[in-house]
Amino acid sequence: MSPLVTPSNVQRSDRHQNRARMLISCPDRPGIVAAVSQFLSKHGANIVQSDQYTMDPEGGLFFIRLEFDLPELEQQLASLKRDFAETTAREFAMEWRVTQASRKQRLAVFVSKEDHCLLELLWQWKSGDLYADIAMVVSNHPDMRDTVESFGIPYHHVPVTPETKKEAEAKQLELVRDVDTVVLARYMQIISPTFIAQFPNRIINIHHSFLPAFVGGKPYAQAYDRGVKIIGATAHYVTEELDGGPIIEQDVQRVSHRDNVEALKRIGRHIERIVLARAVAWHAEDRILTHQNKTVVFN
Amino acid sequence: MSPLVTPSNVQRSDRHQNRARMLISCPDRPGIVAAVSQFLSKHGANIVQSDQYTMDPEGGLFFIRLEFDLPELEQQLASLKRDFAETTAREFAMEWRVTQASRKQRLAVFVSKEDHCLLELLWQWKSGDLYADIAMVVSNHPDMRDTVESFGIPYHHVPVTPETKKEAEAKQLELVRDVDTVVLARYMQIISPTFIAQFPNRIINIHHSFLPAFVGGKPYAQAYDRGVKIIGATAHYVTEELDGGPIIEQDVQRVSHRDNVEALKRIGRHIERIVLARAVAWHAEDRILTHQNKTVVFN
Amino acid sequence: MSPLVTPSNVQRSDRHQNRARMLISCPDRPGIVAAVSQFLSKHGANIVQSDQYTMDPEGGLFFIRLEFDLPELEQQLASLKRDFAETTAREFAMEWRVTQASRKQRLAVFVSKEDHCLLELLWQWKSGDLYADIAMVVSNHPDMRDTVESFGIPYHHVPVTPETKKEAEAKQLELVRDVDTVVLARYMQIISPTFIAQFPNRIINIHHSFLPAFVGGKPYAQAYDRGVKIIGATAHYVTEELDGGPIIEQDVQRVSHRDNVEALKRIGRHIERIVLARAVAWHAEDRILTHQNKTVVFN
Amino acid sequence: MSPLVTPSNVQRSDRHQNRARMLISCPDRPGIVAAVSQFLSKHGANIVQSDQYTMDPEGGLFFIRLEFDLPELEQQLASLKRDFAETTAREFAMEWRVTQASRKQRLAVFVSKEDHCLLELLWQWKSGDLYADIAMVVSNHPDMRDTVESFGIPYHHVPVTPETKKEAEAKQLELVRDVDTVVLARYMQIISPTFIAQFPNRIINIHHSFLPAFVGGKPYAQAYDRGVKIIGATAHYVTEELDGGPIIEQDVQRVSHRDNVEALKRIGRHIERIVLARAVAWHAEDRILTHQNKTVVFN
Repeated sequence: MSPLVTPSNVQRSDRHQNRARMLISCPDRPGIVAAVSQFLSKHGANIVQSDQYTMDPEGGLFFIRLEFDLPELEQQLASLKRDFAETTAREFAMEWRVTQASRKQRLAVFVSKEDHCLLELLWQWKSGDLYADIAMVVSNHPDMRDTVESFGIPYHHVPVTPETKKEAEAKQLELVRDVDTVVLARYMQIISPTFIAQFPNRIINIHHSFLPAFVGGKPYAQAYDRGVKIIGATAHYVTEELDGGPIIEQDVQRVSHRDNVEALKRIGRHIERIVLARAVAWHAEDRILTHQNKTVVFN
Repeated sequence: MSPLVTPSNVQRSDRHQNRARMLISCPDRPGIVAAVSQFLSKHGANIVQSDQYTMDPEGGLFFIRLEFDLPELEQQLASLKRDFAETTAREFAMEWRVTQASRKQRLAVFVSKEDHCLLELLWQWKSGDLYADIAMVVSNHPDMRDTVESFGIPYHHVPVTPETKKEAEAKQLELVRDVDTVVLARYMQIISPTFIAQFPNRIINIHHSFLPAFVGGKPYAQAYDRGVKIIGATAHYVTEELDGGPIIEQDVQRVSHRDNVEALKRIGRHIERIVLARAVAWHAEDRILTHQNKTVVFN
Repeated sequence: MSPLVTPSNVQRSDRHQNRARMLISCPDRPGIVAAVSQFLSKHGANIVQSDQYTMDPEGGLFFIRLEFDLPELEQQLASLKRDFAETTAREFAMEWRVTQASRKQRLAVFVSKEDHCLLELLWQWKSGDLYADIAMVVSNHPDMRDTVESFGIPYHHVPVTPETKKEAEAKQLELVRDVDTVVLARYMQIISPTFIAQFPNRIINIHHSFLPAFVGGKPYAQAYDRGVKIIGATAHYVTEELDGGPIIEQDVQRVSHRDNVEALKRIGRHIERIVLARAVAWHAEDRILTHQNKTVVFN
Repeated sequence: MSPLVTPSNVQRSDRHQNRARMLISCPDRPGIVAAVSQFLSKHGANIVQSDQYTMDPEGGLFFIRLEFDLPELEQQLASLKRDFAETTAREFAMEWRVTQASRKQRLAVFVSKEDHCLLELLWQWKSGDLYADIAMVVSNHPDMRDTVESFGIPYHHVPVTPETKKEAEAKQLELVRDVDTVVLARYMQIISPTFIAQFPNRIINIHHSFLPAFVGGKPYAQAYDRGVKIIGATAHYVTEELDGGPIIEQDVQRVSHRDNVEALKRIGRHIERIVLARAVAWHAEDRILTHQNKTVVFN
């Protein structure tokens, strides 16, 4: 079926052809910023954005995210990366990566029955607010097929039962083998350690509570029982600890005794979809560094 | 030392001489509102404010808070209460109470070394925003004496050590025997079950986290380790379960990786004092009903 | 084209067959609550929710919204209304209305080119969160036809030019003659006094600023120029004064110097759609009373 | 009278002896970051924090705030500044300044009758949260003398009447001649253009509304009349246009129809004092650059 929608072609200045992003982490010591900016300057690059953070100023870790423009980036990038690896990166024992801003990450979105988070991503993608390539939607249910295909996006129904868990996962891993990031948009199946190992800090989940409160199942019912006056949602990278991975973003909304569990779910949906969309956008813009089960988000 | 400050005499309309507050809870059934308003009407009272809430509409509990004006309230109140007890309250198996709005609750504020919550209460009391009588401040340290006495409020230094816990508590209970409500304004000692039993739902504590996350000690350090993007504070009634009692009020503030533990404490202080002050004010205005470890706040 | 989506059939308890809503405003005086609840009680109705508000307690206006259950409401309602009109309403000089909670309001949504507010309404309608009947979408552009029709909702393209304004309006008024409420979901044409007169307090507009700041055109550019640190959106009833009608709901989001006008629009879209959706839902649930260019929202 | 309180000696790492802050603005062009970091590196300085912002990436203005450590800063600073002026600053046509982080700004706080903003500043100063020197409090009323002097801070009562405006201002200017920044903490007198000219972008005012809404007098009454659902406060630099200067910080709080003007004032006070305190702290930490009646806050 021909798509009802096509992504908009927003040409924002921070995504143009010669824009690159560099993320670095290394042991803190004097001279890092000077060394990096000198390196880039020598290679004809102009730094247009820079955010840094030092964890524990008395000798801890240093993180920096730079955006720079380099004429003919496409052709120059490989040699720039080679030079950097052999000089500055080695000298400062850096972990680092450089990506082209114009390159869209390929995302696979996993969904079960609740569609609000998926819809938010689809519409943000369509409007150009989410600068990424939604390569596919994978679901253990068939319900969302028509909607997803109306966006011109492939839909894969992969049923999961306790007996077929392993085969289902194998099928999923095959589907996402060329994907950069997996987004669990209220996908209710547990992701296995095998799967997680293939996508370290590249699986983003939305948990429908304000972590670390109410981990696990039925968080809105848990919130209702505790009588909290504020509920929230949390987007995080998936690790082997259920709902325990590095938190990327959270947001909240006030509630009162008048809100029963159904109302909490209804209010919570709006928070969930906004929080997940922010997290996915920041991840797609290479704004997140992870360290010791926490994130540094340069936004 | 003569006080530097005296409480302001704000005569707000909802605290005048003939204003009363009635709180009722009973099993839900048809006719409650009609019965109560007819009763009050027959006794010459005019209902000026009414808030109700039915927990579980299919046969659950009914809660209502009314404010009414009754000419010559002072003289009429006793007989009105007697009549209500013998008629409507009995008929509907009500738990209820009626208080005079002009009557100020007597509060005892307990504090340790952190003074921000106490100061907020003192200044709100002085400005008339907190309509209550701060009868005394009790502390296990001597630090706040001068400040508290400059407000014209008695200060009692009751040191507490592991060996003297029992005697200290006995002294405290003696001091607060005529007090309506105890406010723990970052008071760091554990309140014993004996003490709690004397003040059921009448001890308000401020816990410096967004419950149920980070119960117990050093919640800001816990929050820092978890890498949350939002911190908060919670005011609750004290029960035997540490930080587990009914939540009265919560609020939050956004933080980022830039905020170390000291910064979290600094940001958190503002939330703590505002949240505690709100909770104490609502309690002083008889706006809170408690049921099944949760509160219904009519505000 | 057969719809991709059908509205869910959420049977929430506050919308069942025997539930009615009553809104009253009248000069404040003793006995109103008693009179109304006695009346309802005599007619066999059970009050399940009650919210009141007195503007200016020293002799001002009294407002109350009640929800009550009446067995066989459908058959009883007409006579109950007749009796109320002749007795209590007359005695207290009340303005009042009673509606059946199960009856869905018929809405017409007007849209121009920005689709986010419309989409939010469509998805909330589909999920059952918005309990109303979206009878049609009217637009001065053809762009949204496919999307709207995929929801099974009629789409009317009514172009508007300076020369054809009058005919266009005549056509619109004809289309909406059986509609309860008109929702302007980022509809960019000015509504004429004639149109407004047909729908007093029944046209809800979303203005993309935090009123009364930045009325009129290009509010995000205005906000950017003023260098505000917070932007917002406002839902209000349309009156003859542009962006001057009674405010129903507002919300805000923090921004910084990093956000240029395009970013402000992007951030603002999320606020606009949530604020409009809340306002429309409250209006559909008969939660809003208007007085002196302000709203009382019983929520 | 000996002070009841003395400021705490918090030695935060970002205020130690060898820490300096550099703020720069200049026309944007390639190489700025490299040039500045090379300069600092050559002079033995280590950049520990860097925030930049380019207004209008296609050839606009560039802003950067750096924090760097330089051994023996006290002795080295003068020559570093001289060198910078003659080389990099000249080359890039920079406007710039460098200050020592350990140096406290001298503040004069002006107050009228409302004391909440002043008290917030005094307590934040006392706790060490506000790293500045409150050199004096100036007021057109005598009311706050005892409180201010209890903090060990000089209090100057300078009455102002229409006839004595000029002399009063002359007296104030004489008092504040050695002061860095004037903070108007709900000071209700208009500041003259003469005064403003002496303190360009160095007078911080708190206006009790969410600008640009409700400029001028009685903003809470204005807000009440407009029926807004959210109120706020704004801290800004004072310019000749009343309430029109560059906005530094704003915050808001939700209100409802239940809140009359007195309630709005009460709720508003908490926002005012927090917003003013944040703005003053950022200013004291040299985090604010101003351009075209807007601020860039590096926080």
